[in-house]
Amino acid sequence: MMTIQWIALDWGTTNLSAYAIDENGKVLERVHSDKGMSSLAPEEFEPVLLDIIEPWISADRVTPVIACGMVGAQQGWMEAPYSEIPCMPVDAETAVAVPTKDPRISVQIVPGLCQRVPEDVMRGEETQIAGYLAQDPQFSGVFCLPGTHSKWVRVENGEIQEFTTFMTGEMFGLLSNHSVLQFCTQSKSWDDTAYLKAVETAMLDPVGLTGKLFSLRPQALLSGKSSEILKSNLSGLLIGAELAATRKYWDNKKVVIIGDRENARLYHLALMSRGSRPLTFDGSKAIIAGLQPIAKIPQRAVEPA
Amino acid sequence: MMTIQWIALDWGTTNLSAYAIDENGKVLERVHSDKGMSSLAPEEFEPVLLDIIEPWISADRVTPVIACGMVGAQQGWMEAPYSEIPCMPVDAETAVAVPTKDPRISVQIVPGLCQRVPEDVMRGEETQIAGYLAQDPQFSGVFCLPGTHSKWVRVENGEIQEFTTFMTGEMFGLLSNHSVLQFCTQSKSWDDTAYLKAVETAMLDPVGLTGKLFSLRPQALLSGKSSEILKSNLSGLLIGAELAATRKYWDNKKVVIIGDRENARLYHLALMSRGSRPLTFDGSKAIIAGLQPIAKIPQRAVEPA
Repeated sequence: MMTIQWIALDWGTTNLSAYAIDENGKVLERVHSDKGMSSLAPEEFEPVLLDIIEPWISADRVTPVIACGMVGAQQGWMEAPYSEIPCMPVDAETAVAVPTKDPRISVQIVPGLCQRVPEDVMRGEETQIAGYLAQDPQFSGVFCLPGTHSKWVRVENGEIQEFTTFMTGEMFGLLSNHSVLQFCTQSKSWDDTAYLKAVETAMLDPVGLTGKLFSLRPQALLSGKSSEILKSNLSGLLIGAELAATRKYWDNKKVVIIGDRENARLYHLALMSRGSRPLTFDGSKAIIAGLQPIAKIPQRAVEPA
Repeated sequence: MMTIQWIALDWGTTNLSAYAIDENGKVLERVHSDKGMSSLAPEEFEPVLLDIIEPWISADRVTPVIACGMVGAQQGWMEAPYSEIPCMPVDAETAVAVPTKDPRISVQIVPGLCQRVPEDVMRGEETQIAGYLAQDPQFSGVFCLPGTHSKWVRVENGEIQEFTTFMTGEMFGLLSNHSVLQFCTQSKSWDDTAYLKAVETAMLDPVGLTGKLFSLRPQALLSGKSSEILKSNLSGLLIGAELAATRKYWDNKKVVIIGDRENARLYHLALMSRGSRPLTFDGSKAIIAGLQPIAKIPQRAVEPA
């Protein structure tokens, strides 16, 4: 007996997570796919989606499918134009309905947010913030959302006031897989002490990041430092450089970290070492809770295209 | 009538430049190849080299081939172990003779240099510095060597005293070709004003480089900034961040920039904008002048392997 009420989609640049949700908001099934937005042409989104959610939908009723992330970018399935801050992280009124050929689903995409000064954008993180606020609506403080492009977001009175982005995760991937550092940072293991030491190095002297990064290579060549240590150092230097530049966001502020377990743990460790006492909140749970209110809106029937 | 006396090789990670030199040190021919050290197994170096220099050598005599760069790394043709600073940039005594199967050539590789505290290494730049010093032996001051891994090197009394490395060039390549910034920085044109503005931005506030880099993307999305401007900004942010971290090397110091024309021009522009008055010196000319003294050493006959 399927009791799936709606489907949540976290559809990013390189990945897609789909969740089958029951009437109580419980996740019944989840599927992770590498069919990210950047690998798909507009007409490919619906078939890819149906391929994944076929077992979850039926001909008896229209199943709401609510998506956030880069799927709503200009190069995505259908553009969901940015809402401009200050604003609520997610406003059900602004969700964009996407026409589908298949009459069994009704797809909506949550728009991303933009900031004009200084220019910045997000797609997906706004939904995670909305998900946290759903269970703590009075929260005023700062969200830290680690990832490919990590975000720091200040929220007051239920609205996003300002935010900033760092390409920390993407830089870690590029440097450890495609730069001269690939020869000294390939390791499956990890060292928290080496990580925290590098966080401190970067925070005490945050100038000259590209020099500190290079120095990992001669540390391997001349001092025989292990890939485990140097990989942990690399992550620590990048995250430490980010923390040095975001002090106004986290220093003496209430901070909630929303992310996957390992990323959240690393930022939590680093912030704790600087005297901050952040909470952590699961990234998937945040996505689902953030999309839930839109799923509950009566769905308008979408004609097959 | 060939009057080639010796052959100079600048054999780096991704490229190889070979120069046929006459008895007066004049370059008669030059060949550039993408057969860099990282694409070759040890037994492939000699055939690749012969393929390039075949027209330049004869059976009548042994032609000296003098090389510098990553060809002498552990993963190269044959390791030329690092000399430790402080020392002369190039010491003919420490060049490593490489046995060859072909009796028509005698190959030597100039070793790179290492610094123990803080750990750093170079291979190739030491030869360029020696090349400059050959025509200005009393020089005391600083060398700036832009490139994939740019170097700042302090020289006194003919010896290298200290140096530091930044992965500026490699970072530019990774970010403009393989990151989210690839979508907004692909341009064949260039804007010096945008470049210098970004140099200034990075120097006035050198913290938070990975955030400033990301911001180029929303500047394209929200303000429609052109790829020409943003590519110039990207370069300026990276070089500005490097200059902010190397003040003790260039501020109120005699600086000589050694590099290819465009790289040297960019560093020259940036340093001029900060009140420095650097000289520039051609990178290829420096390599050849740096290798020349080794070519003049009587070559010992190398037995075919």
